[in-house]
This record gives sequence, structure tokens and C-alpha cells, in this order.
Amino acid sequence: MNQHDSSSLPLPLPLGFRWSAVRAGIKASGKPDLAVAACDKPAEAAVMFTSNQVVAAPIIVGRRHLAATGGRVSGVLVNAGNANCATGDLGIEACHRSCVAVADALGCVFDEILPSSTGIIGVPLPVEKLIAAVPAATQALGRATENAEAFATAILTTDTRLKVAQESFTLGGRTVNLFGCAKGAGMIGPHLLPATPAAAPHATMLVYLFTDLDASSRQLSAMLSPAVAASFNSISIDGDMSTNDTVLLLASGESGVPAEGAAVASFEAALQRVCHTLAYKIVDDGEGVTHVVTLEVSGAGSDTDAQAIARTIAASPLCKTAWSSADPNWGRLLAAAGRAGVAFDPAQVRISIGGLPVFESGLRSVAFDEAATHAAMSLREYTISIQLGQGPGKTRFVTCDLTHEYVSINADYST
Amino acid sequence: MNQHDSSSLPLPLPLGFRWSAVRAGIKASGKPDLAVAACDKPAEAAVMFTSNQVVAAPIIVGRRHLAATGGRVSGVLVNAGNANCATGDLGIEACHRSCVAVADALGCVFDEILPSSTGIIGVPLPVEKLIAAVPAATQALGRATENAEAFATAILTTDTRLKVAQESFTLGGRTVNLFGCAKGAGMIGPHLLPATPAAAPHATMLVYLFTDLDASSRQLSAMLSPAVAASFNSISIDGDMSTNDTVLLLASGESGVPAEGAAVASFEAALQRVCHTLAYKIVDDGEGVTHVVTLEVSGAGSDTDAQAIARTIAASPLCKTAWSSADPNWGRLLAAAGRAGVAFDPAQVRISIGGLPVFESGLRSVAFDEAATHAAMSLREYTISIQLGQGPGKTRFVTCDLTHEYVSINADYST
Repeated sequence: MNQHDSSSLPLPLPLGFRWSAVRAGIKASGKPDLAVAACDKPAEAAVMFTSNQVVAAPIIVGRRHLAATGGRVSGVLVNAGNANCATGDLGIEACHRSCVAVADALGCVFDEILPSSTGIIGVPLPVEKLIAAVPAATQALGRATENAEAFATAILTTDTRLKVAQESFTLGGRTVNLFGCAKGAGMIGPHLLPATPAAAPHATMLVYLFTDLDASSRQLSAMLSPAVAASFNSISIDGDMSTNDTVLLLASGESGVPAEGAAVASFEAALQRVCHTLAYKIVDDGEGVTHVVTLEVSGAGSDTDAQAIARTIAASPLCKTAWSSADPNWGRLLAAAGRAGVAFDPAQVRISIGGLPVFESGLRSVAFDEAATHAAMSLREYTISIQLGQGPGKTRFVTCDLTHEYVSINADYST
Repeated sequence: MNQHDSSSLPLPLPLGFRWSAVRAGIKASGKPDLAVAACDKPAEAAVMFTSNQVVAAPIIVGRRHLAATGGRVSGVLVNAGNANCATGDLGIEACHRSCVAVADALGCVFDEILPSSTGIIGVPLPVEKLIAAVPAATQALGRATENAEAFATAILTTDTRLKVAQESFTLGGRTVNLFGCAKGAGMIGPHLLPATPAAAPHATMLVYLFTDLDASSRQLSAMLSPAVAASFNSISIDGDMSTNDTVLLLASGESGVPAEGAAVASFEAALQRVCHTLAYKIVDDGEGVTHVVTLEVSGAGSDTDAQAIARTIAASPLCKTAWSSADPNWGRLLAAAGRAGVAFDPAQVRISIGGLPVFESGLRSVAFDEAATHAAMSLREYTISIQLGQGPGKTRFVTCDLTHEYVSINADYST
């Protein structure tokens, strides 16, 4: 547990935002469960939501709000402990009422509030509790590190650690700051799509990114999509895409640095690093995780083929249980790759684990060293490389093992 | 353990076949691991193999043999304890040599032998041990129940129970017998395709079906495909399709009943029952299984859509762990259905568990009874029905929970 490491946010926070969190009584634990972020002026927003066919009320409401405002957000409202999903029209109404409460307190219109929820599906949101806590939440808003950390902590559920990342860069004497926080742990197999009404929805992973760059919603969206593709859309804990996944990027413009010229490349690089760091931290803190495995698939016919193979291996119970005991049973990798729906010639495939060759030329590598491979897999973090020998397609995908603890966490029901 | 229940095969065995099993020393346990079936005369055969891109040597060799003979088989050779997969040209040569040894002992040509292997991937097959055991195996061949049971027992690996099924029917005073046996337990997510060279391969599930019906290879293939689609291709334990999956149907013709007229419908029904029984037994004896769950998905746009939803739920770690503790967390079913790549309107969906309504009209059923649903899920076997309200597509899919014991079985590596 490291939820209040005072060195977790060493850089300045972006200008133009305030954060807070309070206890609304939604989490059974009684911990803070209602987080609010407020923008001094309406911020430009880029949002990506789950591509699940089943989406929670806050996703439905969030899409409407973004369509109505054209991508402007004055406040963010997050509750943890209840997903407000499969709750019907009453769930949508509850979400709407909570947005109105926050908008009234912040002095903006309700469709400038972007809502998020995470927790159990199918249980009515205790909206009265939530609304009752809004005044305390808005009164507690502040610009300090403690405020941002409180926000980042309240959104957590089965997470054991705070997940934050920062970047700053200076151009022409002005500094642009980027602060991001995330919630993960379980039901993590994101596949986010832009928040257009036409898009299908997809995990409960929640990610909030705040910057004081001066950029439009359209510019932010163009930068967010590739950053998400290479980070949050390239991780999996259990492969179970949620109904509530949300990645939100807000830009206040308060740095006075416009998104043009050198600032674009600098911000894109900063955004990619923050997204990568948060995505990695999500897997590292996944439910029951004892090994973080990076899958480097290359030589596929296309990047899509490489992703399909990585996702199938990342979702394979036999691969994931082998990783949990550092079992160098590489045949399971090959079998999983072979069922990914991607054509390849096994004789062209080369597989290495932690840099040690295990399979090539259609059979076990002559250099295969079981003890050394077991030792490499005993580390908490290592890389498995799969070179397919078919074409230029590649991907880098971060996943984890499947342990007794994962089963315990998700099978803890008792009468 | 019930590997030698004397009442497991109460009906007469099909005429024209002999079976045996011996210890070749391939299984670390020292149990019988080499099974042989011999046909008195070359039998007509229908075969379906895995659709995995990576296939074991016996699949490669088996395809060649079937192409060479046009679907005639004089003998079946199965070893358990080693998959002979990812073993390169040496693995193919080892498979060939073992077929030659059996063919010589039976007095047939080598391409009338159909080989199968199951066990670890990537370890060279100890072919000398296998060949050394062939004389004892062919000498032990017999027509008795004990012989058939010995065959069905030797093919097992992590299975805890013998899996056999029988059917008989009489037409015009003549009786047709069908005997089937199967091996399952882990790496069970079959998707079998006909054994034509053009087909892509797909699990290690092994199924052998013997009948004395008088039918051609073409007739048998036409009857086997739909029976497999509704049984072995509609089950999943861990979703990890193997490199060695094989379903073989052999017909000796010795009943004197040709596959025409009423015999076709009678045999099709018998075949479907045997396949269904064996498929269900495979899931029931899956690694660590404590609950067998039948998913009835209906109202989909197509059967393919219904299958995609069933397969996704059956592979969902969150659904499977909830089942292990009889947790009525039906939201996980809905979330998994929503990531199956199938379009549907959640408001039209109705879900029931053990006949008890849990979700309808977009939210938790007003009749939802958590305690009763928990009680229904506490049974070892129950059905989850998902009516999508989109069209006529449907499927019936049998799967199981994910337990601590599954993790233990598959993460048992130690230095």
C-alpha cells in the first residue's frame, strides 16, 4: 500500500484545475468514494470509452454531454463502489441528477459535467448518498498535491496502490504540465474507441489526464487515440473488457502554450509516456498479479495480426498459470498463438523468454536451458518475444499471470 | 476415480474391432500410456482435427494417411504423456516409424494407421520406448469390454474418470452398435474441422468412435460434422484449443446394416447422443471443475453470433470465478456478452440462472432473488439462459467454473 506517498507527484500540477474527494458511503469499506475535478474555465476534452455493447449509464450520459458541448468539460464526477450499469432508465436519471448537483455547485451547465462510475454491475446507484456528498466535495476542491492525490485515491476499488504519472516540458519560457491518474485491478481488457455516438463501447479502467496545454478538443483527440492504442488498448489483466472504461484528457490552456509547432511533438511524447506509465502500473497492480509479462510480437502479417496473437496469449489460462509458477512450458505460448485466428507457418517462428531462446525452426531451441528460463521467469517482470517471420506487423502488449489470489478475489462470495 | 467400473459398457461392442493398451514408459506415472485399436478389415473413417495453426506431428501424418487411403483405417495408435508437437521433422519421422511398427504387427500398410498423441508440447517423443511396446500392445488386442476399457483408460492424462458412451439400435433384425471414448481435462476449447488438407487445425481432446454400421467415409463425414458442431465444438473448459484435437469415427460394416433409409436417421441420433454424452463428460471431468454450466443463448442474429457470445462468457475469468463460489453476480455475464463482437440491444436481453430471472428490460429483474439464485448456482450443474431478442440464432454450450484447483494443476512447476 502506497496510496499517500508524498513523492508520488514531484512535478507541478497543471494550472486551471482543482480536485477533491469525500466519503459518500457507496464503498462498503467506508473509504473515500466520490471524486470531483473542477475546471476554472470550461476545458477542451478528448474522451475514449469502452467498446463493450453493454455500457453503463455514465457512458451513455457522457456521450450525450460531449455531443451537446462539442467536447467541453467544466467538471468530472467519479464514484467508486457502484458501476451504475444495467440499471435502466433509473440509472440514467440517477446519473443525470448527480451531474446536475455538481453543475449547480460549480456554477456551470449540467452537460459540462463528465460522469464516471466503477464497481458492481446491476445494483441501483445510491444516488441520494452521492448527491448529499456533493457540497462537501466541491467545498474541498483545491490545487495542492494532496487534492490531486485524494482524487486519484477515491477512484480506486480493488487496487492496492495509487497510480499517478506526471510530465512537464518548457517551451519559450513557458511550462506545460501533464498529470494523469488511473484505476484498474480487475475487469481489465480495455479496447477503447473515440467517444463519438457511432462508436461501440468497451473495461472498468478509469483514466483522467489533466494538462494546461492550450489545445482544442479535436487536437487532443488526434493525440489521445494513438497514445491509447499503444498503452491502455495494449494491456490485459483478465481480458474482461468492462462496461465503464473511460479515458479523459482535459486541457485548460492555462500554460499559454498553444498546441502548435514544437509543442505538439513535445506534448505527444509526454502524453505517450504518461499513458504508458499508467497502463503498466495498472497491470502491475492487477488482481493477484505476481508476474508482469511484456509480449513483444513481431514479424506478423500486420499489426492487427500481432495484436490478435498477443491478446490470445494474454487471455490464455494455460499460459497465465504457467507464468505464475515460472514454468518454462513454452509449448503453451505456441498453442495459444495458433488459435488466434492468424495464419502463420510454425517453422518460421522464433520464441525467446527473457532473451533466452526456447523455440526456433519448428522445434525446441538447441540452446534451450530449462533452469535458466525458469530463473528468468522467476523475476517479477520479463519479456516474451515472438517473431513470426511473416511480415512487418508488430505489437508490444503488457499482461500478467493468473494466480490463486485472483481466483480468491473474484470468488469471494459467501451467503 | 471410476476408471474400471464394470458397468460402464453395458451394451455389446461393435463388431470388427479389437482394442488394447500397455505401458510404454511415456507417462511419468508409469500407468498404461500406449493404446491400440485394430480393425479386422480396413474400416471406413471420418476424421476431424484441431483448427489450431500449430499442429502436432500425428495430425500432419494423419492427414497424409487419410489423403493417401481416401479415408480407410486399419489401426489406431495413441500415446499419452507426450504431444509430439513442436518437435520438427524428427517428430514427424518418429510418428511415421511408430505407424510402421504398428502396421507391420497388424499386417497392413503404414498409411492405414491413424496416430494420436497427447501430453506436453515441445519435448521429443521417446519413440524407441513406444516402438518397443508395440508387440505387447498388438498381442494384447481383444474384443472384450476389458479391452475397450483398457484402450479408453490409457489415452487419459489429467482426467480423473473413464469417459465412454454407447448406443445400439436394431433394424430388420440386425443390430448396429456404437462405442465411443474420450480424453479431456485441460487445454479444452475445441474447434474441429474436417481432416481435409485445406482445413486449418484446432484442442487436446481425443475422441474415438467405433461402429459396425456399413457406411462410406463420405457418409460418415456428413454425419460426424453436425454431431461434432453440437457437441465437442460447443464445449470449453479453459478455451485453450489444443494442437492435437482429434475426433475419429470408424465403421467396420460388420453389422450388415447399410447407411440408408431408416438406418441413417437412427445412426445420426445415436451418434449425436454419444457425442453429447462424451462432450458433457469431458467438461464434467475438467481440471478443477466444481460446477458445470450450460449456456443457452437464443434470440441472436445468427447461430454464429450466439456461439460467439457463449464462447466469450465461457472464457471469461470473471464469470468463471463467480460460478466457482455460486456468486449471483450476473452483471459479469452481461459485460462478457457485450465484448463478444456481436451487436445487440441490452434493453432487449433477458437472462435467467437455473430458471430464475435475473435481468430484463435493461435492469435487474424485479423478481431477482439473490438467495434463491445463489442456491441454484450452488448445484453442481445448472443452466444460464440468455435471450438476446434480436433474431433466430441460438446455441447450447457447456462450460465450467475456474477454481483454485485449476490454477494448482496448471501451475505445479517446481525446480
